[in-house]
Amino acid sequence: MSNSEILTKAHRAKAAAFAMATIGTSIKNAALDNIAAALEKYAADILAANAIDMEAGEKKELSRALLDRLALDGKRIKAMAEGIQIVKKLPDPIGETIAEWKRPNGLKIKKVRVPLGVIAIIYEARPNVTVDAATLCLKAGNATILRGGSDAIQTNVALAKIISEAAYKAGIPEGAIELIEDTNRETVKELLQLREYIDVVIPRGGKELIQMVVTTSSIPAIETGEGNCHAYIEKTADLEMAARIIINAKCDRPSVCNAIESLLVDEAIADQFLPVVLRQLKEKGVEIRGCEKTCALCPDETVPATETDWKTEFLALILAVKVVKNVDEAITHINRYGTKHSETIVTRNRAAAEKFKANIDAAAVYVNASTRFTDGFEFGFGAEIGISTQKLHARGPMGLPELTSYKYLVEGNGQVR
Amino acid sequence: MSNSEILTKAHRAKAAAFAMATIGTSIKNAALDNIAAALEKYAADILAANAIDMEAGEKKELSRALLDRLALDGKRIKAMAEGIQIVKKLPDPIGETIAEWKRPNGLKIKKVRVPLGVIAIIYEARPNVTVDAATLCLKAGNATILRGGSDAIQTNVALAKIISEAAYKAGIPEGAIELIEDTNRETVKELLQLREYIDVVIPRGGKELIQMVVTTSSIPAIETGEGNCHAYIEKTADLEMAARIIINAKCDRPSVCNAIESLLVDEAIADQFLPVVLRQLKEKGVEIRGCEKTCALCPDETVPATETDWKTEFLALILAVKVVKNVDEAITHINRYGTKHSETIVTRNRAAAEKFKANIDAAAVYVNASTRFTDGFEFGFGAEIGISTQKLHARGPMGLPELTSYKYLVEGNGQVR
Repeated sequence: MSNSEILTKAHRAKAAAFAMATIGTSIKNAALDNIAAALEKYAADILAANAIDMEAGEKKELSRALLDRLALDGKRIKAMAEGIQIVKKLPDPIGETIAEWKRPNGLKIKKVRVPLGVIAIIYEARPNVTVDAATLCLKAGNATILRGGSDAIQTNVALAKIISEAAYKAGIPEGAIELIEDTNRETVKELLQLREYIDVVIPRGGKELIQMVVTTSSIPAIETGEGNCHAYIEKTADLEMAARIIINAKCDRPSVCNAIESLLVDEAIADQFLPVVLRQLKEKGVEIRGCEKTCALCPDETVPATETDWKTEFLALILAVKVVKNVDEAITHINRYGTKHSETIVTRNRAAAEKFKANIDAAAVYVNASTRFTDGFEFGFGAEIGISTQKLHARGPMGLPELTSYKYLVEGNGQVR
Repeated sequence: MSNSEILTKAHRAKAAAFAMATIGTSIKNAALDNIAAALEKYAADILAANAIDMEAGEKKELSRALLDRLALDGKRIKAMAEGIQIVKKLPDPIGETIAEWKRPNGLKIKKVRVPLGVIAIIYEARPNVTVDAATLCLKAGNATILRGGSDAIQTNVALAKIISEAAYKAGIPEGAIELIEDTNRETVKELLQLREYIDVVIPRGGKELIQMVVTTSSIPAIETGEGNCHAYIEKTADLEMAARIIINAKCDRPSVCNAIESLLVDEAIADQFLPVVLRQLKEKGVEIRGCEKTCALCPDETVPATETDWKTEFLALILAVKVVKNVDEAITHINRYGTKHSETIVTRNRAAAEKFKANIDAAAVYVNASTRFTDGFEFGFGAEIGISTQKLHARGPMGLPELTSYKYLVEGNGQVR
């Protein structure tokens, strides 16, 4: 059984990807200009479509958080257009010579950066992903197949139409930006089997979506986003700095993947530090789930943690807290329960910092800073398509170069083996 | 249902991978020395085990080609040991600073090369893969889970025992080199679901094995090896050079993935070139499957090609031949039927060469050279774990750096967002 919409669009995207691979920077930038202008020009159409999704969402009694992600207004559309201008200004990664060398037999080998080809983005109810993903993939020379969630379908259809038409007018081939309009769950599974047409799939959304994609896709996938991040406060830490980092990493935006979910505190400073910091956290509305020692030290601020809590990305004002013997126990705990996203140590001890950096298996390992900096913009990449938590291809924040591959160009004068 | 051998070994490998990540070059090199010495020291044990596999293989009436791949002798064991010395001399990729920069807020970000972690290698009846894969992965700081085919099981068990003991004596943690001894087909499928323990899976073998692994694995996989490679002879080509390249690329080792399977010839030179080159090929025992025009030009040398022939990696002395209008038709044909492995154009026309290089979507694109050079050693990498035909992570020959990932180390002095 095959869904003709998916096959048709995948086929078109693949044809477009071949053309995209050799399209120059000026056309891509002109397309980005056109898209940004069109979003503002057709803002009323976008808002009208969004109103339909919002009404349906309210009828379905979607959560406030979901409705907030779904809602667009003039300001958000303007922010999308401004984001596109940032992407336009980023250097075009395509065509870059990554390395070149000559072999003793005279063969000249050049490793050059090329697009990945067709990228499928599977996401949920954030319409801004439609714009972000399409424009980032375009700048990196890729064709994109977008498959957003049903709750944002009207908005996405409006956005995709505006984006692809604006891009086409600048010389981007038809098919380079495709939206799958069938939001049936089965269509995703079908899409994920189209290895022949799609080079890479990137899921963006909650844990369940990501797990579904990475475990069922036969197309190479990049696992993104799940962040069970930790802060470990070593015994020599500047405790004021430690409290500042913990509060920032937990409370600044608890719903994002680079927020911390667990706090590990060295036993040598636990009785001095925990009562102070847990009180501050509680005042900020954080629920504390403590290990036995934590609960004993701060009975008023805590509830007992369960095994599940150490594994959980709460994405909420909840923090699991554990007293550990030393940096070794902290490392073991983090490597056992973490999701390889972002981990930080607060310490004044160089040896402890080096041990932590060397032994923690995560995309980003911090010393004396908040985990909240794991982000394409904060890293200085100028953009971000997601944060990879796997080790193949890309790790941590993914910008434009992470949306590319390479090929070898080999020039000879008749060499045979 | 779970196989306790697989789970136990995967668990051990993961524990070993954490230790491997920080093991120094000198220990890894000492381990490689030990392994090379042990292979020669225990050659008699290896040969005895191999004799059991050979006897079973003959009873099962395995093909000559398979038995040849399976067979070991003193010379082959010596070659394995010498190969290990080459790996030892390669620079250790781990710990390399790939990039570093400072952010306006004072954060110092360093991108450093780290091992992938646990790599599973799924392969068939070539016992040399056991040695190659284990030693390359070891040098790149990874733990390895080997799962070879049932036909080589006694040889693999002997090799793995010798390798892991020799490595352990040099300080490599137990579990860093594991062989799955259960060769039941179901065990592979089970192994391919262990995302929690295994970071990457690399299949090495025939098309069916590779397709099975990439489509059923929930672990990130690297597709390797299938090569439906082409040579395109443009009308300005030096025809003597063209014939030399075609004969080398087809006949030197027809069973390997970088051999050509199809020849495309510009119609302007077809009547002049095809009769000459097809006669030469026929003399070398090559069966020619031609398009209509080819068959009309050389009725004595050809049989008619079917649609299937354009798609087929023959891995034998068979060549599909098609007359094409120009470089555009050649590019379209190759991008349609090729497997993104290696493609060559023979031409004296710069514009045609540039067009071919820019538009062909393959790991290696050649001008005036044989496709047979797509190989880690020929590229100067000093080693090769396989040739990737996908675009994610690595493309073309994969050496040590392709067996690594990276992480970001971020140093601050209390930064929060």
